[in-house]
Amino acid sequence: MGVFGGRGYTGSELLDLLSRHGGVEVRFATSRSGAGEPTRIPGLDFIDPDSAPAGDVDVVFLCLPHGTAVPWVERLRGGPRIVDLTADHRPGSGREEGAVYGLAEPNRTLVKEAQLVANPGCYPTGVILSLLPLHQAGLVDPERLTVVSAASGVTGAGRTPKPELLFAEVSGNFKAYGEGNRHRHLKEMRILLPDTPLLFQPHLLPVSRGILETIVLPVRPGTGPDEVRAAWRDAYRGAGAIHILEQGIPDLGQVVRTDRLALGVAEVEGLQPPVVTVVAALDNLGKGAAGQAVQNMNLMFGMPMDRGIRC
Amino acid sequence: MGVFGGRGYTGSELLDLLSRHGGVEVRFATSRSGAGEPTRIPGLDFIDPDSAPAGDVDVVFLCLPHGTAVPWVERLRGGPRIVDLTADHRPGSGREEGAVYGLAEPNRTLVKEAQLVANPGCYPTGVILSLLPLHQAGLVDPERLTVVSAASGVTGAGRTPKPELLFAEVSGNFKAYGEGNRHRHLKEMRILLPDTPLLFQPHLLPVSRGILETIVLPVRPGTGPDEVRAAWRDAYRGAGAIHILEQGIPDLGQVVRTDRLALGVAEVEGLQPPVVTVVAALDNLGKGAAGQAVQNMNLMFGMPMDRGIRC
Amino acid sequence: MGVFGGRGYTGSELLDLLSRHGGVEVRFATSRSGAGEPTRIPGLDFIDPDSAPAGDVDVVFLCLPHGTAVPWVERLRGGPRIVDLTADHRPGSGREEGAVYGLAEPNRTLVKEAQLVANPGCYPTGVILSLLPLHQAGLVDPERLTVVSAASGVTGAGRTPKPELLFAEVSGNFKAYGEGNRHRHLKEMRILLPDTPLLFQPHLLPVSRGILETIVLPVRPGTGPDEVRAAWRDAYRGAGAIHILEQGIPDLGQVVRTDRLALGVAEVEGLQPPVVTVVAALDNLGKGAAGQAVQNMNLMFGMPMDRGIRC
Amino acid sequence: MGVFGGRGYTGSELLDLLSRHGGVEVRFATSRSGAGEPTRIPGLDFIDPDSAPAGDVDVVFLCLPHGTAVPWVERLRGGPRIVDLTADHRPGSGREEGAVYGLAEPNRTLVKEAQLVANPGCYPTGVILSLLPLHQAGLVDPERLTVVSAASGVTGAGRTPKPELLFAEVSGNFKAYGEGNRHRHLKEMRILLPDTPLLFQPHLLPVSRGILETIVLPVRPGTGPDEVRAAWRDAYRGAGAIHILEQGIPDLGQVVRTDRLALGVAEVEGLQPPVVTVVAALDNLGKGAAGQAVQNMNLMFGMPMDRGIRC
Repeated sequence: MGVFGGRGYTGSELLDLLSRHGGVEVRFATSRSGAGEPTRIPGLDFIDPDSAPAGDVDVVFLCLPHGTAVPWVERLRGGPRIVDLTADHRPGSGREEGAVYGLAEPNRTLVKEAQLVANPGCYPTGVILSLLPLHQAGLVDPERLTVVSAASGVTGAGRTPKPELLFAEVSGNFKAYGEGNRHRHLKEMRILLPDTPLLFQPHLLPVSRGILETIVLPVRPGTGPDEVRAAWRDAYRGAGAIHILEQGIPDLGQVVRTDRLALGVAEVEGLQPPVVTVVAALDNLGKGAAGQAVQNMNLMFGMPMDRGIRC
Repeated sequence: MGVFGGRGYTGSELLDLLSRHGGVEVRFATSRSGAGEPTRIPGLDFIDPDSAPAGDVDVVFLCLPHGTAVPWVERLRGGPRIVDLTADHRPGSGREEGAVYGLAEPNRTLVKEAQLVANPGCYPTGVILSLLPLHQAGLVDPERLTVVSAASGVTGAGRTPKPELLFAEVSGNFKAYGEGNRHRHLKEMRILLPDTPLLFQPHLLPVSRGILETIVLPVRPGTGPDEVRAAWRDAYRGAGAIHILEQGIPDLGQVVRTDRLALGVAEVEGLQPPVVTVVAALDNLGKGAAGQAVQNMNLMFGMPMDRGIRC
Repeated sequence: MGVFGGRGYTGSELLDLLSRHGGVEVRFATSRSGAGEPTRIPGLDFIDPDSAPAGDVDVVFLCLPHGTAVPWVERLRGGPRIVDLTADHRPGSGREEGAVYGLAEPNRTLVKEAQLVANPGCYPTGVILSLLPLHQAGLVDPERLTVVSAASGVTGAGRTPKPELLFAEVSGNFKAYGEGNRHRHLKEMRILLPDTPLLFQPHLLPVSRGILETIVLPVRPGTGPDEVRAAWRDAYRGAGAIHILEQGIPDLGQVVRTDRLALGVAEVEGLQPPVVTVVAALDNLGKGAAGQAVQNMNLMFGMPMDRGIRC
Repeated sequence: MGVFGGRGYTGSELLDLLSRHGGVEVRFATSRSGAGEPTRIPGLDFIDPDSAPAGDVDVVFLCLPHGTAVPWVERLRGGPRIVDLTADHRPGSGREEGAVYGLAEPNRTLVKEAQLVANPGCYPTGVILSLLPLHQAGLVDPERLTVVSAASGVTGAGRTPKPELLFAEVSGNFKAYGEGNRHRHLKEMRILLPDTPLLFQPHLLPVSRGILETIVLPVRPGTGPDEVRAAWRDAYRGAGAIHILEQGIPDLGQVVRTDRLALGVAEVEGLQPPVVTVVAALDNLGKGAAGQAVQNMNLMFGMPMDRGIRC
């Protein structure tokens, strides 16, 4: 098994998980700028991607910058199976044909047979896993707007130095971005949740890791927290990475450095037509990236879906 | 002029502003636990509130814990004019009679004559000043839900030690609270914005100061960013503390350690019926507390509204 | 096995480690204020300490406030073996008689037979493990002053709410404390490193976890980084938790959330008589507390010293 | 008056100070990458440095990257007086001839007549202003080592994006750098404090601004905190920016966003030969850069030294 792009935040997290997985062997990890330097796995140094023995492994992970995975997928065609952690083959990319969308819990059957898995975006993982079971159970009012206010730690933006990611810019600050429904993850959410208008507003948090998504959800009359939790429980029976809170709502602290998605829901009194507040929390590098990639690999090779992840 | 409760975050900020104001003299500042210790004003030590010479001053500020201002207002009746920074006399408190709501810009005429001013809450200051002109201009669709997602730094919760405010709990974390429309500031907003359903969801940020409010606002057809900005400009002509961004949206960094309210608006394409995204940013200790208290004092004594504040 | 005081930062960390250890079973965890609430171990709730079945277990850990362990040790006499994580039985406490000082690597033989182990302080763990081998190898000039400048994250001060530990006080700040060689950990260091004058200056860092100790060490002529590293290697052969850097010096990021002690040394040119700069890094909750406690438990029960810790 | 390089952290701070100074007019501020964008001064946009009307002003400030000031000084020869905030003309640079070292308080007479002022480094400002009066008063033992452990916020490293300055790298971390007495500021300190061996060990703090310097100072017998404070008071009579604490030691919180240097000293009992602990705190962008530059400008133009700075 090999990792392309193992020095970024996602690649490092993935190497950590794989090194403790127990059921796999990491044969190589690449880094163009860091070739020759040690990885976090004892005895394994980064190699240049062009010299990676991709033909010798069963599966490779692509932890590359968005937009650069396509040529690698071409090059590796007919060789190892691929988990692509970039946005390049996700729904809405225009290149999703031939790729299975690796939302592990709902798509596990499809993933098992996949040659190429498009690992979901971090924000969409939380939004879709929160809302899909509620849509499928008919709890959502499709006529009214679903409003997602999301906030992410800075590792979601990658490790390439940019002025706006400097400590002195981020610390003590908080800002909205992609305002006006312009974040590129929106397309991915809309394709998976086609029947409802959606407004998605992300913010940048002064933390390293973690995503919190606070969703004001228009529901059909008679739908409250109990119905929401019941729909989640039906959908995620046996899914160890999905933590459904019996009461209250999750915070970042409950999910950072884990591969969990924590879900909670709160009643909203006094509003007609009715809404509920749903809160989803996950680690953008865990369930939002490397953790889900490991779940997908597990599925592809017949291992238990949650092996080696921090549930 | 005197300050009751000068050792908390709000009281300290107020003493800083007053010491640089130029047109006032701070005669006393009280602190029960810190009596005898120096204030930030050279030569002025804290005194016990029970020995404060409140009869010798024109105006006192109450920077006390919520719920404790009422007996002081009783005790001071017939004496100095009062700016109450607690929640005790705000709209919805049940004790607002006899108090003028000190939202400085729209209420300046009322404040001038007030004996007792209820200084607004930090969250409501941003929400009401953002939305009131838009309601008055008829831009808002009163049938649909206005969704306010707000986030505040920890000084909004005061200086009394609580486990959930410890550095090790807040740092790296982010959480929603008052979920299900249960924050006590909601009442204040609803009274001032009576004609529209409102969902207000606050979050706790790992920063010391500042509030960002991201508002998904249902608007009438034909209303976009230009109309919103025009309504703001009409309402806030000559109001130096209200910064209306010609484009883009503000972040915390633009307002922390100032007494500004910064307002921006973004177009949302592709949604019907239409919404716009409004973002308001202010410092909870500045325009959200001490800065607005100084504006109110200025108005009460015939000084220019924005004298001594950081516009 | 049982844990007294499992809700503080140290107790929580210890429960996490024990739950993943594999070779032990946690029978109870106590919390006076949190009795009935769930621990981090599935199926285990906190119980009141007075109802703890201490007689049914082989070993208990005391993660209590400093000064409160003594009566528990009295009460448990003749029962389970004890690892005391408080300062109450450490060298210099006046109550060290009958307790073995649980500095795991150098004292492993003594710990094996101990009935009561005094788990070392977080700062002394780094200082003593850094310097003891250098003293024993005769590399240190005992006539000149050893200067330790140390900095710790806030969890070192515990979870009891105090004003100076609030987020708004710690964030953006940095300060020295215990200035003038007055920190209570100094006695512990001096007893273990008796032959040399020592100045220990701690600081409070705006981080949650981790200790960095930068030591300006007077050395005998001819002693440089190579000799220092050789002495460490001799002393810590086979000790998996001690990471000796071949070059450079460690930072907090390399040790936070681990049970490692990382050691590095830098040459200082141009000063006579000579000094070297030694840097030690550890997690105050890991090797500085819970990690070392697990090492001690392992030794007491014939398990490999580093079982279940994050080396 | 003009500012070259007004978009970095130092340049921004300087523009803020100058805009509130009252006695000067900023005629231009340059930024090669930001030409055309607004400065923090209303009505003033950044211009390209090559089109700056340097001949029309009395004084220019160079807030440029280290190493780039030399050609500008050549180019401006015979024109405006210059305050150079880079390291290019500081003691030890090899180009200090013709420049006056702008340590404002001790060098005020020299600065008045200077054509070119080399504004001191941030670390040396604290170390030299702390120690120079003690050396001059004969309190320091020149035979023993002075150990300076310093820590700085990240703005000290400038605004150019580098991986090690990203939020996700700095947050939660702490590290020593320039270990082994290799920081380039050391030369500047040694030239000003020639008679004593000095070890200077800087660290990088997870804060935006501020420097704390903890100095273990070998003193002559009979020297304690009282003698140290007396020497400081003698040296800094009338110097409003130097705050000498009557007791205790300063922390960052007392100086951040000011132009102060705060000095404190603590007794060390039980060590022979004797030492004291001196702590100096300043804002690297305030007294450590822009604040001192304003002091120097004030001196050059016959204004009170501390006009317009935050004492």
